[in-house]
Amino acid sequence: MIEQLKLAVDTQDRAFIQQQLENVNYADICAVLYELDEEEAVFVIKALPITLAADVIAELDEDVLEEFLDEFDSKELAQYVERQETDDAKDLLDELPIIKREEVIGYLKNKEKARHIQELLRYEEDCAGGLMGKELIKANMNWNVEQCIEEIRRQAKHVDKIYSVYVVDDDELLLGRVALKKLLLAKENAKVGDIYNDEVISVYTYQPTEEVAAIMQKYDLEALPVINVQGKLVGRITIDDVIDVITEMAEQERQIMAGISEDVEEDDSVWMLSRARLPWLIIGLVGGIIGARFIGVFEDDLAEVTAIAFFIPLIMATGGNVGIQSSALVVQSLATPQAFQDPITRKLFKVFLVALINGIVLAGLVYLFIYFTSGASLAYVVSAALFTVVLLASFFGTVIPLALDKIGFNPALASGPFITTTIDLMGLLVYFMVAHALFNL
Amino acid sequence: MIEQLKLAVDTQDRAFIQQQLENVNYADICAVLYELDEEEAVFVIKALPITLAADVIAELDEDVLEEFLDEFDSKELAQYVERQETDDAKDLLDELPIIKREEVIGYLKNKEKARHIQELLRYEEDCAGGLMGKELIKANMNWNVEQCIEEIRRQAKHVDKIYSVYVVDDDELLLGRVALKKLLLAKENAKVGDIYNDEVISVYTYQPTEEVAAIMQKYDLEALPVINVQGKLVGRITIDDVIDVITEMAEQERQIMAGISEDVEEDDSVWMLSRARLPWLIIGLVGGIIGARFIGVFEDDLAEVTAIAFFIPLIMATGGNVGIQSSALVVQSLATPQAFQDPITRKLFKVFLVALINGIVLAGLVYLFIYFTSGASLAYVVSAALFTVVLLASFFGTVIPLALDKIGFNPALASGPFITTTIDLMGLLVYFMVAHALFNL
Repeated sequence: MIEQLKLAVDTQDRAFIQQQLENVNYADICAVLYELDEEEAVFVIKALPITLAADVIAELDEDVLEEFLDEFDSKELAQYVERQETDDAKDLLDELPIIKREEVIGYLKNKEKARHIQELLRYEEDCAGGLMGKELIKANMNWNVEQCIEEIRRQAKHVDKIYSVYVVDDDELLLGRVALKKLLLAKENAKVGDIYNDEVISVYTYQPTEEVAAIMQKYDLEALPVINVQGKLVGRITIDDVIDVITEMAEQERQIMAGISEDVEEDDSVWMLSRARLPWLIIGLVGGIIGARFIGVFEDDLAEVTAIAFFIPLIMATGGNVGIQSSALVVQSLATPQAFQDPITRKLFKVFLVALINGIVLAGLVYLFIYFTSGASLAYVVSAALFTVVLLASFFGTVIPLALDKIGFNPALASGPFITTTIDLMGLLVYFMVAHALFNL
Repeated sequence: MIEQLKLAVDTQDRAFIQQQLENVNYADICAVLYELDEEEAVFVIKALPITLAADVIAELDEDVLEEFLDEFDSKELAQYVERQETDDAKDLLDELPIIKREEVIGYLKNKEKARHIQELLRYEEDCAGGLMGKELIKANMNWNVEQCIEEIRRQAKHVDKIYSVYVVDDDELLLGRVALKKLLLAKENAKVGDIYNDEVISVYTYQPTEEVAAIMQKYDLEALPVINVQGKLVGRITIDDVIDVITEMAEQERQIMAGISEDVEEDDSVWMLSRARLPWLIIGLVGGIIGARFIGVFEDDLAEVTAIAFFIPLIMATGGNVGIQSSALVVQSLATPQAFQDPITRKLFKVFLVALINGIVLAGLVYLFIYFTSGASLAYVVSAALFTVVLLASFFGTVIPLALDKIGFNPALASGPFITTTIDLMGLLVYFMVAHALFNL
């Protein structure tokens, strides 16, 4: 299939491409396009029926879309935008330079849609307004069921998925909703005002996308009406867009934990990838240099008992591992609503107990090993230092993400290079201080 | 509110609790329960109207549910199960010991539901069958629209959210679907066989939940019919259950990256938490002991130039950071479908280029720093070792997750303690070998 398409692109065989793909799902076409190179993919898109091409473009990854858009002129883009849902159209236009964006909007034949899209362009990407679309069915509370169905018929072409009809008063204030099922089973002359459910959950345009995702997840919603500060219904968010938000949040957390500046992917340029990684590596490097200074202070101890150096990696690695485990548990408990929360003091006491168990087991194992290979005094020093490091790393690994969350930062930062470097250094310092104190006893 | 509830529990004031909560959303009640202690929460649940209590129980976190169930006898549980959707009922019964499970099923008055639930209990949790519910609307292709609506009316009480009516033939084989919107707009005497959409996406009962999640996400579905090997329609998966799967996958990956055996949460017992964390810490410990042996081999070099020890932390930390960054990028590209995939050789070449840039910058900085503080020869040794370590850590950080994925393991394991320990050791070995070679030149 891919080979045939490539051949068709080479021979400029538009008819073949159209015939092969016109009954294929847009998401599958997207997957096929990713197997072609950029030029071929653009050729295929242009060969598709316009409505299908519009769906395919809406489904493309944002980074890919950005690269593609230069290959289309404003008139072509207007044709696609005309056939896209308003939220997808907004996302596309957001990628364009302002002049081209205005051109595309100018070419739109459906002036109501143009107005809707311009309204959406006002909102930032990371709030409910930036996520919503204008496609929804709105019914006045004084209508009857027949009028509702007539409205659905009128809008059927524009609103692909309906779920509920939203009920508003004469001032467009959101009052409630009628599920499609209820509408189907109701009598034609029943009043909307009598059958609607007023326990409708909605969000304001300015609420952050993370909150929107949490609300839809909590209440198991497939669509969520959006209101402005006056309480007027202005849009609707559907669950598919929210799933993308959830996926992006997980991706962002992974990058933070790994110490990569946000928003790079493996297929970005070598330069971008290096730039995203270097700052965090340099933080680690500075930490390493400070570490070298610490050790330098204890040069005399080291010259006397070279074996102290042998266990630097052990102390550092264990401290780092304990710290990351602790902070991952906190991040997790902050991310998922926890049942029967213990008060903070009990939580810290529990962390302390776990650290105590881990510390005793690890220090015990190390003591035994070193005792039989290098003698009692070194065993004593290393295991005492290890025990202290486990306790401290547990404490900081727990407290730092809590503190970050409290002051409004992403707690996952605590698993990133900055904090782990700090814990590394602390471990190193404790080790050499313990060694110094015990050997000079 | 919480205080009032606690007081009502103390005074056994069931009427107050019922009156306060009967019009509250079940998800909100759940959040309230998490603020109480276990005994209080059970009392509140028992005071609620049964249908509401059933919804609340279905919404409870799995771990919490498990603890609760002992507080209810089989007859009480049967009342709740009777009012739950079949997939929630299955999840509840899965937590019970077999004898109690059979008792509860025996008490169910709706024998069809009992049969449905028993059918669902056969499926493992991690496949489509374990995720699906039996609530769906099925229409024979020979029916007309009026018969469909009649069927919806008949089932309306059991099937909360409908989305689509699934069309089957006389053998119950899935043929397609009719969206509720289409049904609403169709003529009453229209044949289902004439209006249904045969491009319906379905999954088999045995497909893993990760695949189900990927399919629903790819095609933007809010519900997905499930068929058995013969192609018969046997259930339906709704998007809210899949969102939970996506969230759990992210949580699992976080735990793997942090080196925690799966499925512990902050509120588990001290013993469970220690047990989940110790194995990975011991892996790190063993790595540290092997590291001590490595360094021991180079004891003479160390005795001669103590300053070599100073830079052990720097080499290890940088190697670890580079390795984690590299593997996080690979994990990410495996998790999200990548556009315009480069062939593997080009990818590795790119990784090499990025490593080269990072290596040169980091080694350069370190060279300058050490040159001005400790002289040229040490600067030369440390920066040469650092450069080598960056290249090797990039390579292994990239190749290991790819290899893990290839042989069917979770690639996120590569960011866990086992692999990072290996990369640490490699860095250490390289450092001392370079130091040994260069100082003896």
